[in-house]
Amino acid sequence: MIKKLLIANRGEIAVRVIRACKEMGIETVAVFSEADREALHVQLADEAICIGPTASKDSYLNFTNIISAAKLTGTDAIHPGYGFLAENADFAELCRDCSITFVGPSPEAISKMGTKDVARETMRKAGVPIVPGSQGVVKDQDDALAIADEIGYPVILKATAGGGGKGIRIAKTQEELIKGLQITQQEAMTAFGNPGVYIEKYIEDFRHVEIQVMADNHGNAIHLGERDCSIQRRLQKLLEETPSPAIDSETRNEMGEAAVKAALAVNYSGAGTVEFIYDYNNRKFFFMEMNTRIQVEHPVTEMVTGVDLIKEQIRVANGEKLSLSQEDVTFSGWAIECRINAENPEKNFMPSPGKIQMYLPPGGYGVRIDSAAYPGYSIPPYYDSMIAKVITYGATREEAIEKMKRALGEFIIEGIHTTIPFHQKLLAHEKFVEGEFNTKFLEIYDVMNS
Amino acid sequence: MIKKLLIANRGEIAVRVIRACKEMGIETVAVFSEADREALHVQLADEAICIGPTASKDSYLNFTNIISAAKLTGTDAIHPGYGFLAENADFAELCRDCSITFVGPSPEAISKMGTKDVARETMRKAGVPIVPGSQGVVKDQDDALAIADEIGYPVILKATAGGGGKGIRIAKTQEELIKGLQITQQEAMTAFGNPGVYIEKYIEDFRHVEIQVMADNHGNAIHLGERDCSIQRRLQKLLEETPSPAIDSETRNEMGEAAVKAALAVNYSGAGTVEFIYDYNNRKFFFMEMNTRIQVEHPVTEMVTGVDLIKEQIRVANGEKLSLSQEDVTFSGWAIECRINAENPEKNFMPSPGKIQMYLPPGGYGVRIDSAAYPGYSIPPYYDSMIAKVITYGATREEAIEKMKRALGEFIIEGIHTTIPFHQKLLAHEKFVEGEFNTKFLEIYDVMNS
Repeated sequence: MIKKLLIANRGEIAVRVIRACKEMGIETVAVFSEADREALHVQLADEAICIGPTASKDSYLNFTNIISAAKLTGTDAIHPGYGFLAENADFAELCRDCSITFVGPSPEAISKMGTKDVARETMRKAGVPIVPGSQGVVKDQDDALAIADEIGYPVILKATAGGGGKGIRIAKTQEELIKGLQITQQEAMTAFGNPGVYIEKYIEDFRHVEIQVMADNHGNAIHLGERDCSIQRRLQKLLEETPSPAIDSETRNEMGEAAVKAALAVNYSGAGTVEFIYDYNNRKFFFMEMNTRIQVEHPVTEMVTGVDLIKEQIRVANGEKLSLSQEDVTFSGWAIECRINAENPEKNFMPSPGKIQMYLPPGGYGVRIDSAAYPGYSIPPYYDSMIAKVITYGATREEAIEKMKRALGEFIIEGIHTTIPFHQKLLAHEKFVEGEFNTKFLEIYDVMNS
Repeated sequence: MIKKLLIANRGEIAVRVIRACKEMGIETVAVFSEADREALHVQLADEAICIGPTASKDSYLNFTNIISAAKLTGTDAIHPGYGFLAENADFAELCRDCSITFVGPSPEAISKMGTKDVARETMRKAGVPIVPGSQGVVKDQDDALAIADEIGYPVILKATAGGGGKGIRIAKTQEELIKGLQITQQEAMTAFGNPGVYIEKYIEDFRHVEIQVMADNHGNAIHLGERDCSIQRRLQKLLEETPSPAIDSETRNEMGEAAVKAALAVNYSGAGTVEFIYDYNNRKFFFMEMNTRIQVEHPVTEMVTGVDLIKEQIRVANGEKLSLSQEDVTFSGWAIECRINAENPEKNFMPSPGKIQMYLPPGGYGVRIDSAAYPGYSIPPYYDSMIAKVITYGATREEAIEKMKRALGEFIIEGIHTTIPFHQKLLAHEKFVEGEFNTKFLEIYDVMNS
């Protein structure tokens, strides 16, 4: 049994994990960089250890210091949160070697899903729909041209070692493909040390719909429905909701089953998210990638299913079986999450770190706040700009939206700029209210001036 | 349709009503005394009007000023909250005379339930179980003695015009009854201008279990389950929960049906609470009183039923039918509310008004905060000492308790004393955890020194 757990992260997700542990009777150890001495997660944990200077690579990404902190405090388990080391197979393996329970899947599963061409092949073999394209890395220019001719333009070139929007290039013609292939291979070599590139059909208009999965070490895997994360700015999600306004129950079931197949194909364990491209024009979905960790937007799933995903992660890491079967999963109501970032939406989302003077989060019925902010807290400029997640829950989408408007309207954050005004404009936007949007929504509509 | 609503109240309930109105698209008018200029409800409402000096009788109880504020702002409806004018039949009547919708039952219903002997008789006729005792006011000493002999000692003497623990006396013997009757009659005459006293069997050990009812103006009435409010200090509720750990589903149904009968017997409309004495030793329940308004503890019912009671109140006041039937009411999970008061539990709950220096309410999954406090807010010494309600929700009672412990542990309120340490001791108390308590719990156990 896990008795003491170290959270190798900071910010709201560290606070989220500490809260779950407190409710489970598990002792907690916070780690922090020198810039985070005053952070809330440090104050809330039972113990806290400085693991290095401000730069992430020296602290939150510092294997040695984190493992040392775990050993020093007699920690049984490490929860990586999201970001930082959450999808680092080497770190997960190091934990295993040090006899520390890593709250997440095996290094092998992380690795298989982290390498894009391997993941794609694994999914193809498992019968999970993938975007038409090359089978593995393209051999050369002729191979690329042949594949593109077969699947039709536009196509997208992706570095197998890429991620987060890097190492990607779209080609609408043969000429663009020839040029693009060269450049992408060179870039991939320089950035990732691996020149491998593969080709996929480029689907222009799609929604980002992802499925939450949960699996244990006894061969059980279930899904907990979808999240629609199509509202993005430069591939960064800004608002997420469940259910998706675009998915019917048949598609939900099919997508859910595909996600479970994906998890089983890599002997997955713990919480994971299978992201899909939902080609709504053709009512088809394709595997995009699997995030082998808890997601920022996990609370919306918790609100409609009643399942505490962090507690379930910890129980699974502890060797327990899933606490519920697929038949036990029920969905009720609608949940929306707005990510509140310390950014100025009036000035092209320029980061706005600094001291929060006055701070009062919204409250009341159907409002959940996941945050590490407090009055007087200085947001450091070195890390993620997200300072709070506002999650609202209502019987219907309309009610969840009304609650979100109400909640954002009463949220007081003084001293810095935040993305609250952006969300207020978005929530009032006709097309958003109608549920008609895809991943290009913020390119098509100038929400701030609407 | 109600377009603009005035909240004739302050504090968290004013904020609660404003929130519901915002989500319904109804404009809000706050009223405030001179001491409440900086109050949160004033800041959150669309408009705010000062209705008089600090003393409640000159402001929050000032009929003329409140009605004038309503007329001045073109208000359609008044929500009275709880306390102040919420159960004042004259005020409800004045609203009616001024063509302002009173969000609550008719003056007649308020009046019938507000006079204890009338309520008792009405319930008896409606077939709602009442505590054995006199049929109406006792005539004289001989009458009193005869009744007491019939029902058996101990008995309790109650002034018909009393309430809130005033005008009540217990008699264990004939001698005590003779003396007690005289004194209670005299006191009742002095305090309430009405010497009427009635007698009931005194039930020593009972739980306070109440049923939430909701009725419309079309003859429909439903119940939304019970709340156990047995944890009281000097008749003030401190912690409430639903379901009750002491009630089985058969008793719940019987009690619920009795409460619906009670509501129908007075042509009730809106939200109301029928309070019962639950004599758990004999598995019997008896009508105690009906509160003809929303209760402080209404959120726990909202959490387990998913019904927004304030919105339902407003819809009913608007002439709409109930949005759900008895068959639609379902119960899921467990909810607990702790009332956080500005009092020092180490010093016999001495009031502790003053300036809140640092304030950070807890957040996360399953935690709801209903409060009007904020950092820098000065709690005035003139009104209610309650500054926040922490409501937690979990699948089981154990989970709700663990969440409450976690939430209270992270609640930061600096500058004043609060009852948080009391609640922490209570939640850790073996007998509370076992669900074994009655209304004498805090007399029997010295919780602060346990």
